[in-house]
Amino acid sequence: MSTETRETPLVSFETGPDRYRHWKLDVAPPLARLTMAVQEDEPLRAGYQLKLNSYDLGVDIELADVIQRLRFEHPEVRCVVLTGGIDRVFCAGANIHMLASSTHGFKVNFCKLTNETRLAIEDASRNSGQRYLAALNGTCAGGGYELAMACDRIVLVDDGNSAVSLPETPLLGVLPGTGGLTRLVDKRKVRRDLADVFCTVAEGVKGKRAKQWRLVDEVAPRSKFDKVVNELAMEEAAASKARADRGIRLTPLDRTVEDDEIRYGHVRVRIDRNERTATLTIAAPGPGEPSELAAIRKAGAAWWPLAAFRELDDALCHLRVNEDTIGLVLLETEGDMDAVLAVDEVLERHAADWLVHETRLFIARTFRRLDLTARSLFALIEPGSCFGGTLFELALAADRSYMLDDPARPNAIAISPLNGGAYPMSHGPSRLGVRFLATPERPGEILADPRSYEPDEAEAAGLVTVVADDIDYEDEVRVAIEERVSLSPDALTGMEASLRFPGVETCDSKIFGRLSAWQNWIFQRPNAVGERGALTLYGKPERPSFDRRRT
Amino acid sequence: MSTETRETPLVSFETGPDRYRHWKLDVAPPLARLTMAVQEDEPLRAGYQLKLNSYDLGVDIELADVIQRLRFEHPEVRCVVLTGGIDRVFCAGANIHMLASSTHGFKVNFCKLTNETRLAIEDASRNSGQRYLAALNGTCAGGGYELAMACDRIVLVDDGNSAVSLPETPLLGVLPGTGGLTRLVDKRKVRRDLADVFCTVAEGVKGKRAKQWRLVDEVAPRSKFDKVVNELAMEEAAASKARADRGIRLTPLDRTVEDDEIRYGHVRVRIDRNERTATLTIAAPGPGEPSELAAIRKAGAAWWPLAAFRELDDALCHLRVNEDTIGLVLLETEGDMDAVLAVDEVLERHAADWLVHETRLFIARTFRRLDLTARSLFALIEPGSCFGGTLFELALAADRSYMLDDPARPNAIAISPLNGGAYPMSHGPSRLGVRFLATPERPGEILADPRSYEPDEAEAAGLVTVVADDIDYEDEVRVAIEERVSLSPDALTGMEASLRFPGVETCDSKIFGRLSAWQNWIFQRPNAVGERGALTLYGKPERPSFDRRRT
Repeated sequence: MSTETRETPLVSFETGPDRYRHWKLDVAPPLARLTMAVQEDEPLRAGYQLKLNSYDLGVDIELADVIQRLRFEHPEVRCVVLTGGIDRVFCAGANIHMLASSTHGFKVNFCKLTNETRLAIEDASRNSGQRYLAALNGTCAGGGYELAMACDRIVLVDDGNSAVSLPETPLLGVLPGTGGLTRLVDKRKVRRDLADVFCTVAEGVKGKRAKQWRLVDEVAPRSKFDKVVNELAMEEAAASKARADRGIRLTPLDRTVEDDEIRYGHVRVRIDRNERTATLTIAAPGPGEPSELAAIRKAGAAWWPLAAFRELDDALCHLRVNEDTIGLVLLETEGDMDAVLAVDEVLERHAADWLVHETRLFIARTFRRLDLTARSLFALIEPGSCFGGTLFELALAADRSYMLDDPARPNAIAISPLNGGAYPMSHGPSRLGVRFLATPERPGEILADPRSYEPDEAEAAGLVTVVADDIDYEDEVRVAIEERVSLSPDALTGMEASLRFPGVETCDSKIFGRLSAWQNWIFQRPNAVGERGALTLYGKPERPSFDRRRT
Repeated sequence: MSTETRETPLVSFETGPDRYRHWKLDVAPPLARLTMAVQEDEPLRAGYQLKLNSYDLGVDIELADVIQRLRFEHPEVRCVVLTGGIDRVFCAGANIHMLASSTHGFKVNFCKLTNETRLAIEDASRNSGQRYLAALNGTCAGGGYELAMACDRIVLVDDGNSAVSLPETPLLGVLPGTGGLTRLVDKRKVRRDLADVFCTVAEGVKGKRAKQWRLVDEVAPRSKFDKVVNELAMEEAAASKARADRGIRLTPLDRTVEDDEIRYGHVRVRIDRNERTATLTIAAPGPGEPSELAAIRKAGAAWWPLAAFRELDDALCHLRVNEDTIGLVLLETEGDMDAVLAVDEVLERHAADWLVHETRLFIARTFRRLDLTARSLFALIEPGSCFGGTLFELALAADRSYMLDDPARPNAIAISPLNGGAYPMSHGPSRLGVRFLATPERPGEILADPRSYEPDEAEAAGLVTVVADDIDYEDEVRVAIEERVSLSPDALTGMEASLRFPGVETCDSKIFGRLSAWQNWIFQRPNAVGERGALTLYGKPERPSFDRRRT
């Protein structure tokens, strides 16, 4: 039973081209044109207007959907031109009034989701041969420029007026929230002193100087803009490898949302708001999963790995945004281990096929979303479960795993070749590699003999955290859960973000580590969100008043 | 004129063995024993007692001093045994009542300084052949265990009672503040799920399990503890290379502190609290600097590079802790460029000499402290300045550099071989390398021809940010200063921390990036510092009350 009432309406992450309000997709292979034309009067919640192509989570949910569909539904597209559909402004960035009126937690999760969307663009370019060209037909500020930086190339109209800018620091007293600072110096390699100047000039930089500073790749006068954009897009398309002529359709999710339970075809989430836990269960495929390409193509979005991970992905977004008091997610699996491993065999054997490849990439993104979810994760490995190969990544992603050792009810985990790097973490390594940083030869040894492990073997191999017998298991798990949900949610968020990512950081992971952590800090500071803070007073006649002490 | 009154007494960073209150150093080459015996009733400021070998900034200032002296004054020491001088407890970590009663800014700066001290231990081990062995003669909690993790090896007494622990999350609702989480999984490579368990168990882990989990390297019963410690210390000493038999003395700094000015032998800091700027000027060496080793040895701490950088280091610590309203540091140099470059030539020619090597390492640490100082940095390159080689690193470390181009008054910067990596940043690369990430061949080209650059050449080579002629320079700099100090101090801190460190992150830099950023966030959250927060209520009978929403 819920003890809280819901303050805001549920956010749904499901959409589709026939329901887009803010984006328009035109496919003309090998190109697609994705046009942002945000409807001012259709914000996600009441209270603000989406002027000047500014965006909120609703706009981003559509963007995430279209990027995903382009990969699965339109493999024939090899370059996506991202442009603006209103006059003189490409995009004004995240809507400030939305941010100023949101809770701290919502702001942080909004930034995280929009970051993941931009990383999905980069993933499509890097791994699916679907490049992105930002065609900036007008001024491009803040989150708008961050979106452009997620693309491979940026063309800016040179009309004496249109500029790119990151005005967050000078205007709002916060940081760009979707990776802007990191992408500026790490991805686009803008010289750091020029980046410093750029980030403090509210009006931004335009024309030739924008190109000189590496802020954009090309500038073109308005008269030649469309021509230049088209030439560059064709150039990008020609440079990227063809995948397939026809895609599959991403059909609507099979989902039932009740107050304390969400049921999908293969995934179930049970919410216990008193205990502050969610139990997320993934079911193994049933009989009859296809093993050959023609049958996989025919199954399409109903193919188990694609269907189950679309459901898992949706469930994670739902938990993040709609269930913020749930502190601990218990990860469970159920069903036939052999069926799970048979799917892994198919995923591995047909890895070169575009659809299988896309599915693996999508599973990888979903696991990265799990790694980046600011909730404690415990995997519960019990008789009847099927933590094997791809599904064993759930246990590897978890902060801890508990395994029941009851001779009367056999229970095992299994390793498959897909644990060897098919699903890299944000900072690059496999979860198995991260687990055995101290003994870097171990992952290779384990992968050389992919097999199942009984509880005692799993413990000896270091593949699970705690093994307990039938007398102790239930108590041990219960106490661990009670203890976990009693701790400070903030300290857990920081602790988990620190312990989950051992090893070298990359541009991707710095966006969530260094940059987002600073961003969260600043979003909490009176200089931004206090009564006289810059974010609070944005658009009002009063000037912000700062506590000048530097920390 | 100051418009503010100082709330707390000035913190001085100068100390020496005859003034230590909390540490005892016994040198018996090749070993040294460094014993922590904190005086309860000698806190840095009134209001708390330093019970159970807990520490505050005063304790850490002495530790930083002794680590520095060991390198310069005792090169004959090849292993330092760090142990506790009170019964049953090695160290209880940072003093909680001190933390709970400190401002947010002080907490953050306290953590940063203590982090730098622990990195100095690792630097001594990595680069000076002076290894550290933590001999944990009793329980070791929080910052105490973080100090142990900064050592090369850890021995824990196995007495059925003494444990290592990181109780910050379960007891205080904050994160370990001196790199603990990062060192746990990145340096000591503790398996991340075991690290998760360890970090939520307030009482910690002791005995054989502590060794099994890689939390310590050895355990020894109390009866054999001293013997085992001595054997391990001799083993470490034997494995590290001998440097020299006799060191030099680090004489007291030549320093005069006035209300709005600090004058050292070679460094001057002028404070303008109305403008919120500090002008930090480093003077070139005078005539007669030694160029041969015997003379350098004789000059000792008076040798210009050592003297000037000790002063700069002290000035940076002073600005951080004692002048928190100063938002912008203007970096200036003055004097004979040839004299600066002559010192660089000596630093390079004698790089293999232990004292020259130590001096270079210390200069590198000081520049890293500058990179990590949360104040805006502008370098002002004007006629009469000497931004060459080592001193040009100041301009490379700055967020921006402004150079005056006045034909009537020549002005140049200069490159020396020392800009090629003698002074690496926290994350590894040289500042010249970071500056030219987009054109990685440039640093090599520039270093192949180390020379001076007139303003127009310096601008063309990308070595300075802004070049302005005598008509515009003054206005341009004035406007830039006014604009900079008008911005949100918090947004600037996050922006600078993001833009200064492009490239891959390492364990060292993750401590300041990912971990410290999260720590700062948590230190600001009501769950820690609110009326009912865990840090606020520590040691009181009331239980903390958490806002359960996860972000």
